[in-house]
Amino acid sequence: MQRYFVDQCLNPQDSFPLSRADSHHISRVLRMQIGDQVQVVDGNHQLYQAEIIDLADLVTVQLGDRLDIETELPVQVAVFSGLAKGDKFEWLVQKLTELGVYEFYPVAMRYSVAKWEPKKADKKVSRLQKIMQAAAEQSKRLVVPVCQPLHTFDQALSQLANYDYVIVAYEESAKQGERSQLAQLLNQVKPGERLALIFGPEGGLAPHEIEVLSQLENCYLVGLGPRIMRTETAPLYALACISYVCELN
Amino acid sequence: MQRYFVDQCLNPQDSFPLSRADSHHISRVLRMQIGDQVQVVDGNHQLYQAEIIDLADLVTVQLGDRLDIETELPVQVAVFSGLAKGDKFEWLVQKLTELGVYEFYPVAMRYSVAKWEPKKADKKVSRLQKIMQAAAEQSKRLVVPVCQPLHTFDQALSQLANYDYVIVAYEESAKQGERSQLAQLLNQVKPGERLALIFGPEGGLAPHEIEVLSQLENCYLVGLGPRIMRTETAPLYALACISYVCELN
Repeated sequence: MQRYFVDQCLNPQDSFPLSRADSHHISRVLRMQIGDQVQVVDGNHQLYQAEIIDLADLVTVQLGDRLDIETELPVQVAVFSGLAKGDKFEWLVQKLTELGVYEFYPVAMRYSVAKWEPKKADKKVSRLQKIMQAAAEQSKRLVVPVCQPLHTFDQALSQLANYDYVIVAYEESAKQGERSQLAQLLNQVKPGERLALIFGPEGGLAPHEIEVLSQLENCYLVGLGPRIMRTETAPLYALACISYVCELN
Repeated sequence: MQRYFVDQCLNPQDSFPLSRADSHHISRVLRMQIGDQVQVVDGNHQLYQAEIIDLADLVTVQLGDRLDIETELPVQVAVFSGLAKGDKFEWLVQKLTELGVYEFYPVAMRYSVAKWEPKKADKKVSRLQKIMQAAAEQSKRLVVPVCQPLHTFDQALSQLANYDYVIVAYEESAKQGERSQLAQLLNQVKPGERLALIFGPEGGLAPHEIEVLSQLENCYLVGLGPRIMRTETAPLYALACISYVCELN
């Protein structure tokens, strides 16, 4: 069932027009008809069954009952990632959305080979946001995760006080055979808590960055197992582990 | 440290020439010099430190000591995946290799939109195998996972008797809120056991395929959490969960 996100807060039986983009998708791309069913998620992250009742210009839907289907991770996870090369971020944010991420921060780190020109950064962020929106619809999320603007390392650092845990993926921890810190930590996490996960770019985190991070209260340097993962694979691994512990175990 | 795989079985202090492809990579791509260090994994999956002692035509290395660094998953995981569209398999096998997969089976399933022409199937498989080889070197594996030839569903089925557990990712299980079967199962798995994971193509597994699979002894239909994952994301999620349970927990 196709799912659309709207900003307003809704009630059962409401009828209202969808946005121009969603209307186009329904009438032109999917060629749906009056009487066909979709799902709508409102600004309060509530899910409704909805029926198409008008296809003129904008598509109008009438809501049915609220559906009680939880698809969000019970913890809020923000991924802070050093800028990666090529189009890696495009599929990283798609996959992270499928895996339940809440926010994504692109961070210009010391060893980032990729640079974002300030003029183009906003355009890149809105492209990533669109990918996250589409992935949220497809994976049946109740929340569209947010792609934050480009942050410098210091700007990212100043965000970290907002999280209960700051988890830094650190290759040296992995090399030294550190393998149990992540599991210990995830076993303590409680529903509703906020986790920040920090990943370096292809060149890794710089020694100065590690030093500053490790001085934060609630910061944990963790290994992610014995194999070396690419910069775009490690965040998926960590999100999958969080989902496993919080949703399957 | 750059890592190369060789077929022969080696002993400390052996000296021998590397293959033409590896020699080219060392001398032309990386422009390494005599005295530079690499790592070599032999046909017994043993890892050695090695020094470059000759760069003429083929590169000759002399082994030092055997290194005792384990980077393989303690269980052998085979992923059977329905043929997926576009180049999804290319990055899927790269990521699965980083996550520790042992074998990959491309399977023509009932609902596969993608079709592989018989003439081109071998070429596709050798391309996937090359990607797995490169990813094994980069992620510091001791084993290069194998990309098996294209299998029909029935051919795949006949392989499954070779595995201790057959784990089928089944969207209907997820929809019905089944969330604990995978965890229960992974908590029983013992080192050295062999796991087959089965994933449908974009259209999912066909009812007949599910029926046949579920009649196998040791077959488990499992949900992978509340969100709908794409066909190329679900295997990564499952591999990460297996690594978490077997290597981090």
